[in-house]
Amino acid sequence: MQSIDRQALERIVGTSNVSTRDADLDAHSIDESHSRPGRADVVVWPTSTEQVSALLAWAQQECVPVVPWSAGSSLEGNPVPCCGGLLLAMYRMNRIIEIRERDLQVVVQPGMVYAELNKELGRQGMFFPPAPGSSEVATIGGMVSNNSSGMRAVKYGVTRDYILSLEVVLAGGQVLRVGSNATKSSSGYDLVDLFVGSEGTLGVITEVTMQVTGLPERVMAVTSSFPTLDGATDAVYETLRSGLDPAAIEILDADTMRITNEQQGLSLPNVPTLFVEFHGSNDGIAQEIDYLREICDECGAVRFDFAEYTEAREALWRARREARESIKRSHPGKTLIGGDACVPMSRFGELVRYTHQLADESGLRIYAFGHAGDGNLHTEAIVDGNDPAEFALGEELTSKVIRRALEMGGTATGEHGVGLMKRSFMRQEHGAALDVMRAIKRTLDPYGIMNPGKIFPEDSAAE
Amino acid sequence: MQSIDRQALERIVGTSNVSTRDADLDAHSIDESHSRPGRADVVVWPTSTEQVSALLAWAQQECVPVVPWSAGSSLEGNPVPCCGGLLLAMYRMNRIIEIRERDLQVVVQPGMVYAELNKELGRQGMFFPPAPGSSEVATIGGMVSNNSSGMRAVKYGVTRDYILSLEVVLAGGQVLRVGSNATKSSSGYDLVDLFVGSEGTLGVITEVTMQVTGLPERVMAVTSSFPTLDGATDAVYETLRSGLDPAAIEILDADTMRITNEQQGLSLPNVPTLFVEFHGSNDGIAQEIDYLREICDECGAVRFDFAEYTEAREALWRARREARESIKRSHPGKTLIGGDACVPMSRFGELVRYTHQLADESGLRIYAFGHAGDGNLHTEAIVDGNDPAEFALGEELTSKVIRRALEMGGTATGEHGVGLMKRSFMRQEHGAALDVMRAIKRTLDPYGIMNPGKIFPEDSAAE
Repeated sequence: MQSIDRQALERIVGTSNVSTRDADLDAHSIDESHSRPGRADVVVWPTSTEQVSALLAWAQQECVPVVPWSAGSSLEGNPVPCCGGLLLAMYRMNRIIEIRERDLQVVVQPGMVYAELNKELGRQGMFFPPAPGSSEVATIGGMVSNNSSGMRAVKYGVTRDYILSLEVVLAGGQVLRVGSNATKSSSGYDLVDLFVGSEGTLGVITEVTMQVTGLPERVMAVTSSFPTLDGATDAVYETLRSGLDPAAIEILDADTMRITNEQQGLSLPNVPTLFVEFHGSNDGIAQEIDYLREICDECGAVRFDFAEYTEAREALWRARREARESIKRSHPGKTLIGGDACVPMSRFGELVRYTHQLADESGLRIYAFGHAGDGNLHTEAIVDGNDPAEFALGEELTSKVIRRALEMGGTATGEHGVGLMKRSFMRQEHGAALDVMRAIKRTLDPYGIMNPGKIFPEDSAAE
Repeated sequence: MQSIDRQALERIVGTSNVSTRDADLDAHSIDESHSRPGRADVVVWPTSTEQVSALLAWAQQECVPVVPWSAGSSLEGNPVPCCGGLLLAMYRMNRIIEIRERDLQVVVQPGMVYAELNKELGRQGMFFPPAPGSSEVATIGGMVSNNSSGMRAVKYGVTRDYILSLEVVLAGGQVLRVGSNATKSSSGYDLVDLFVGSEGTLGVITEVTMQVTGLPERVMAVTSSFPTLDGATDAVYETLRSGLDPAAIEILDADTMRITNEQQGLSLPNVPTLFVEFHGSNDGIAQEIDYLREICDECGAVRFDFAEYTEAREALWRARREARESIKRSHPGKTLIGGDACVPMSRFGELVRYTHQLADESGLRIYAFGHAGDGNLHTEAIVDGNDPAEFALGEELTSKVIRRALEMGGTATGEHGVGLMKRSFMRQEHGAALDVMRAIKRTLDPYGIMNPGKIFPEDSAAE
């Protein structure tokens, strides 16, 4: 799109860290969503805050779009360079800068991979709990940018809850430090939480200071199978209301279980199934599992298994974590249209039923699963990407689920962010607050160069 | 200051809800801080969002400052009308709008008193955990505006962690809804957390939707006395690092204990003392208390008492909660200069020692106590308000403690907010981020009418 002065970039990051090769542009053109790919004009690999700052100063000067990219594992087109420009491949800034063992804090560069961080932290008895589905590749920078969470949010909260301070480079190159190392603060506006979840539209994150937590003494996992979905969602509700404190409480519908059994080599019944995990002390966990069994029995469970967190159990949990992957592999060549709505706990069962009703009425296959404890429902509609009518139907039904979630007081995106794919729900969800978001965007990025085209609907300025 | 058209206000809220009487102006001129009192030009008592909106539309039109006020129990001059104008007395908007028992959510007006809310919630087995020292009078609106917390933050977090959505009236009168009823979201910029802790400088909060939590099965409380302060702070550190999960872990230094014993009719030893509370299941709590006893013994404790949460125990906890009140009553006629710094856990003991060193060197009495589990140190320097030299010394020493906390990577205010009294630390704490805060302030309040003079140092625009 723009004609870019490659030499200027090479002076900042070195010749070998600038590329306009097709292979490099393509490798950074699409994430895990069904978004249309978009090509940047140039890819650069910065290795320091100073380089990022110089790149952003240059970009603002030249009015070139800047798109930060780390793992490319996001699900809504969040880092797809839809307007060309400069792609900042942040994954070489992937070091742990400091582990503050005495404060349960860690300072990392944004390209640090989640699973690797937890491997390091585990050696000192600590971990960073939010567990995204893509935990083997997802980076901390990406998790911060999308406020990711995953299976353990029900007990441990989301990425936002762990971020103490950030180093951020603003459009124009100014380097900012927001937040502090204190575990709590009431000192002025909460800029940390403004940048968390802003998807690179307000600045580029170059350093993250996190609170982490101690590894639990013991981990136990449960699966429980139900003849009906209502039984399973009732059990979720009763579990949370009873004061039990599960570290995860996940639901897979019958179709998703069937696929998961097939793809992951399991032999659980092909019926609605809960996956529950408990973290705690020896005695505490035993009590919690006894109580959960009672609840599941009362809700009509036909099977209840539990085990220590051994390899077998890890395989089960991998199965849950990779539900989306299993669905994908079961439908080679098909396109998955994903939903990530989140509703108040009491409405979760209703939203699942509505999803199944839409699928039944239309004949389209829609898988439903998710973080039931948070009311966070993932849906995957399976369509033929080359059949425009079916594709449109998949989008329409997914859209209906999301709009119903919004009517229930929920949100269009529980943990994936808005990116390109959820922009059209922003006005319904936020109303006039969307204009306030846009005003803040203009204040921090007056030329609109930071990850343009994301979060805000294309016409929201004109609405 | 301004000449105010009283009739315009009377048309909005009714004749009896507008006052320019001295008694009313004085009653809303000073909070619990040692700030200089400031008088508004007029006090109004709105009773609905519509009235607040009309008042703010009028105020922006007339360029009149607007200061929201609820209990007046804040500690940093946060609601002191230092620039005259319109004082919005919000405490008549004090209803519970809805309790969503099935979602553990509650919707309240901003003037709802914390203790009364918890009385209501308790009937349904729920509670809102952040427990400010002024819990009998503090309002939810004030707690949201200052991001208050208190003794239970170490387990349950701060006010911010419970706020799902807000209704806010902006300068000019626009009514905004931010957030949703979902327990988690990654949908655009986090405006909820921007308004939480903004101390009325960005808008007036007219409705608050909160997540609350289930009451614990059992509550036990412990006091443990130590010959030295180091022993007590070591025990705090070991408790948190060991994975114990106290609901409160408070420290009182020897002087504060002496005053507390005198004023609250207790007979604990006049030595550094920990107050610890556990919430949990029967078996879990017993284990935790056994483990805590071992830790305290190893750290040299000379006494360790625990008891069920009975009346006697409640009296003990009232003693801790009212430490500041006890200090005040012990020094009639004196002025208290307060500090509320917060540092990483590992530095807390060092900050307490530094405070004592300053007191010893200067001969000034400075009490030190606080939420040790969060690293949140409260200091109270006792000065003669009529002795300018002593007053200046009290301010200087308090300032030194705060600046030392900032050097440790901490914050100038852990839970009281900035108000008037902590503005001078904002540049050191936030650097260039303070300019970003100011830019956001200008975006949302272009005429600067919302609680002017707060948070930002007077000269920060010109710096």
